[in-house]
Amino acid sequence: MRLCVYRDGGTRLGVVDGGDVVDVTDLAPAFGVPGPLHAVLEHGIDLARLRPDGRPRRPLADVELLAPLPRPGKIVAAPVNYRDHQAEMDAPLTVAELGVFLKAPSSVIGPGGTVTLPYTDLRTDQEAELAAVIGRTARDVPEAEALSYVAGYTCLLDITVRSTEDRSTRKSFDTFTPIGPWLTTPDEVGDPGGLDLRCWVGGTPRQSATTADLIFGVARLIAYASSVMTLWPGDVIATGTPAGVGPIHDGDRIVMEIERVGRLEVGVSGAGARPYATRPGARAVVAS
Amino acid sequence: MRLCVYRDGGTRLGVVDGGDVVDVTDLAPAFGVPGPLHAVLEHGIDLARLRPDGRPRRPLADVELLAPLPRPGKIVAAPVNYRDHQAEMDAPLTVAELGVFLKAPSSVIGPGGTVTLPYTDLRTDQEAELAAVIGRTARDVPEAEALSYVAGYTCLLDITVRSTEDRSTRKSFDTFTPIGPWLTTPDEVGDPGGLDLRCWVGGTPRQSATTADLIFGVARLIAYASSVMTLWPGDVIATGTPAGVGPIHDGDRIVMEIERVGRLEVGVSGAGARPYATRPGARAVVAS
Repeated sequence: MRLCVYRDGGTRLGVVDGGDVVDVTDLAPAFGVPGPLHAVLEHGIDLARLRPDGRPRRPLADVELLAPLPRPGKIVAAPVNYRDHQAEMDAPLTVAELGVFLKAPSSVIGPGGTVTLPYTDLRTDQEAELAAVIGRTARDVPEAEALSYVAGYTCLLDITVRSTEDRSTRKSFDTFTPIGPWLTTPDEVGDPGGLDLRCWVGGTPRQSATTADLIFGVARLIAYASSVMTLWPGDVIATGTPAGVGPIHDGDRIVMEIERVGRLEVGVSGAGARPYATRPGARAVVAS
Repeated sequence: MRLCVYRDGGTRLGVVDGGDVVDVTDLAPAFGVPGPLHAVLEHGIDLARLRPDGRPRRPLADVELLAPLPRPGKIVAAPVNYRDHQAEMDAPLTVAELGVFLKAPSSVIGPGGTVTLPYTDLRTDQEAELAAVIGRTARDVPEAEALSYVAGYTCLLDITVRSTEDRSTRKSFDTFTPIGPWLTTPDEVGDPGGLDLRCWVGGTPRQSATTADLIFGVARLIAYASSVMTLWPGDVIATGTPAGVGPIHDGDRIVMEIERVGRLEVGVSGAGARPYATRPGARAVVAS
């Protein structure tokens, strides 16, 4: 099952069925800003109950998809979780020593959104990732049971500024976490450790990998993260990016695709970018 | 005004008036898990409207105070924001180069709670901090206006494991963010850049500082953070800790006090601690 959140007058919950979307909003509990899918997960509603049978349908192309989870309680992410990305970043440590980092929930945008570059003079990169969405509260879960806590999978772009700043800063600018296009349930995805992942920027291939190469696979990553912090329904777990990260620029289109999960596309704008030295608190630049 | 969240049958919103608490829950909007104070801030209700006049009161000592914000949308924190702490940590960079990091909202506990040590063989430290709570949505706010976005101040302990892991991991274990005892509004606090802050562990003084020594004062920190990410009502801004951090142990009491803000006390338990090498995903330990 593929569950999407979309705009049609208000915010709606839909089941994607072939090329159509079927409105199942009335099967979701009352919801606020975090939206109907978040509410479904928080209330522990069995996703199998969101049946599209016999309901009116519309072509998917006619609706505007939104982020399936526009305001997750947490976005927990793996810093160095593919060997080839470790090599390209010349990173001495991996997720096994670095643990996880957090991205701000305010950084989420949906499919078709626009990533806004913050600085004119710092490099900002795309990092395409498989994301797992937590379906029920997870605390200290063993690796062997971890996948049973997953409500589904989605595509995630972990947009990242290269600077001296903490990962949480460099990766949390508004618009820096595109997710979507929808949540695909585990029964449709199968083994999350055997998925092809690809990413293009401006039409040029950047990343091509398989999640088989994850250092911490999805289950181990959830087990580890849940040994640190309680994971809530609707929390998003970003599994890390393979090699091929690189700078994005004004006007670029970023497209990522994960086998059996979906295809996510966003734009890039540099219209609001400012020199790094003009940020609040920047040290005075000394003329050389 | 001092606003507290407390348990009395259910979760209540109170105004602390002298040694009493006055129940003003009926002036708050309907609320869920994030609680009544969060709901008040999210709905933009003027805190001055939460008047205790003519309402029944109870001695504060008779009620159980809870975290004023048990599930903030974000906890945004400054990594190295006092020179003396920079020196003791031998840290080459400060908040000006490191930016901010994020703590998991699932790490919050309230006054009288218990910090749970995760590992038997890694050092876990107390870090006492002044925290500002955001009162209205802040995006790219100038430093000169930043304090007008503050709903109030509270005490915060940024509990921290010393390891190779990302700050978000080391500082986000469940129970690692005690906050309270209440929210004190800016009119009672005055200049947040001139407050004495003290912390004791096991009765021994550990930290004694003034917020006048903050590298990024509250206004600059909010201006900076809001240049990265949109700050939401109820977001907590932890301003960083002065020198004097040190290990905490099973059975310790941690007490911190900030002039005109409040006094926060929690316990420490090592009952659930495990060897670091037993965490999920730990590399096999090679005998030396």
